[in-house]
Amino acid sequence: MNLKLTLQYDGTAYHGWQRQQNAITVQEVLENTVSKIFSGKIAITGCSRTDSGVHAKMYVCNFFAETSIPVNKIPFVLNVSLPEDIRVIKCEEVLDSFNARFDTIEKTYEYKIINAPHNNPLLSRYAWHYPNKLDIEKMKEAANIIKGKHDFKSFMASGSKVKSTVRNLKCLDVEKNGDIITIRATADGFLYNMVRILVGTLVYVGNGKIGVDEVFDVLKGLDRTQAGKTVPGKGLCITEVKYSE
Amino acid sequence: MNLKLTLQYDGTAYHGWQRQQNAITVQEVLENTVSKIFSGKIAITGCSRTDSGVHAKMYVCNFFAETSIPVNKIPFVLNVSLPEDIRVIKCEEVLDSFNARFDTIEKTYEYKIINAPHNNPLLSRYAWHYPNKLDIEKMKEAANIIKGKHDFKSFMASGSKVKSTVRNLKCLDVEKNGDIITIRATADGFLYNMVRILVGTLVYVGNGKIGVDEVFDVLKGLDRTQAGKTVPGKGLCITEVKYSE
Repeated sequence: MNLKLTLQYDGTAYHGWQRQQNAITVQEVLENTVSKIFSGKIAITGCSRTDSGVHAKMYVCNFFAETSIPVNKIPFVLNVSLPEDIRVIKCEEVLDSFNARFDTIEKTYEYKIINAPHNNPLLSRYAWHYPNKLDIEKMKEAANIIKGKHDFKSFMASGSKVKSTVRNLKCLDVEKNGDIITIRATADGFLYNMVRILVGTLVYVGNGKIGVDEVFDVLKGLDRTQAGKTVPGKGLCITEVKYSE
Repeated sequence: MNLKLTLQYDGTAYHGWQRQQNAITVQEVLENTVSKIFSGKIAITGCSRTDSGVHAKMYVCNFFAETSIPVNKIPFVLNVSLPEDIRVIKCEEVLDSFNARFDTIEKTYEYKIINAPHNNPLLSRYAWHYPNKLDIEKMKEAANIIKGKHDFKSFMASGSKVKSTVRNLKCLDVEKNGDIITIRATADGFLYNMVRILVGTLVYVGNGKIGVDEVFDVLKGLDRTQAGKTVPGKGLCITEVKYSE
């Protein structure tokens, strides 16, 4: 049967989701545990590659296995063997046709910035410390210009290969609560490093390196070098994954 | 001069604030750093002992030193040498009479519970996982009975020695947001382990081990064995310390 898992993980110790040579990843740890429990070499399909250090409040994956364990008990069984920084919070049997990667219709990521002179040790595991002043209103204006359906080639890591660089960025919100800035991005899909480059560009707008009036040119220039830096992975978290019902 | 520091720390790696033989504490690490920077053996007075694993969103301490470093630069100088899980966020020169321990008029602690079948790896460093069902309304009722000025002897670790066990618990709030329960306690002072025993007692009310109608008896019994268990330190955080101006 086809089993859909919903996970949460603290990505600090992992080189992202995707299996790699010579680096520990969430996929590898989960595949090893699932293969042990279900007695067989099991491959797991994840909803998204996530970068090194990126966290997940909601991550979805699926795999095929036969088992006599009741489906609702599977999270408990897997959590006994998984390291504490990865938790399976839900398991459902789904149609054989379900694919966690190709069937996503929408994903949401959140990026957190600690914008204060000193870092906050209670948040620093899940946020990037940026000490200089940021103009939050300008960042909001820029986010409004960037969101929508566009060719996001300027916001993709150079060297990436994809058929199309057009994505529908349905939401790009900037919020400030005390010293914490949260940037929330929802799209039908994201290019490699896209959220981290979007955030880096909004930070450049906030600190004045890019004017709000230049943002449209950065977007339309389709040139990675015009956008902001790629901000660190630790501030990023995948928070929602949607599928058509 | 008398210097007042405001700190934040992640208490995971420490056996609380107070210096101990054979165990690393926040006070020891901070005193070593301050003594190095200000060239001398400097003793630091903290606003509160905190237990092993307890965190601080706001912790206040003071010490005497002479220095040519501008006071507002001291946090930056100390943070270069301190480990990342302790940050000095503010330094002020205060009157010589100021004492971070004896001059507090009010402290607030928050305790977080992850009340879900599975733990949440993004919060587990700062919260206690309790998987069983809790009746939040009963916990709120019990908190209302407990708060106020009382003899809190039932809520003090056995064997502790203090002159008086009367405290004014001005606030004891229970809030639920999704799977996260936050219990917030404000008082003129707290007995040893008091917040953790209060939370343990509210959990006993929530799971039905103690009836709401028995809470008043637990309080008036002045007997530690009638109250709930001491919940783990990692869920506790000191969030505010007030001084008379």
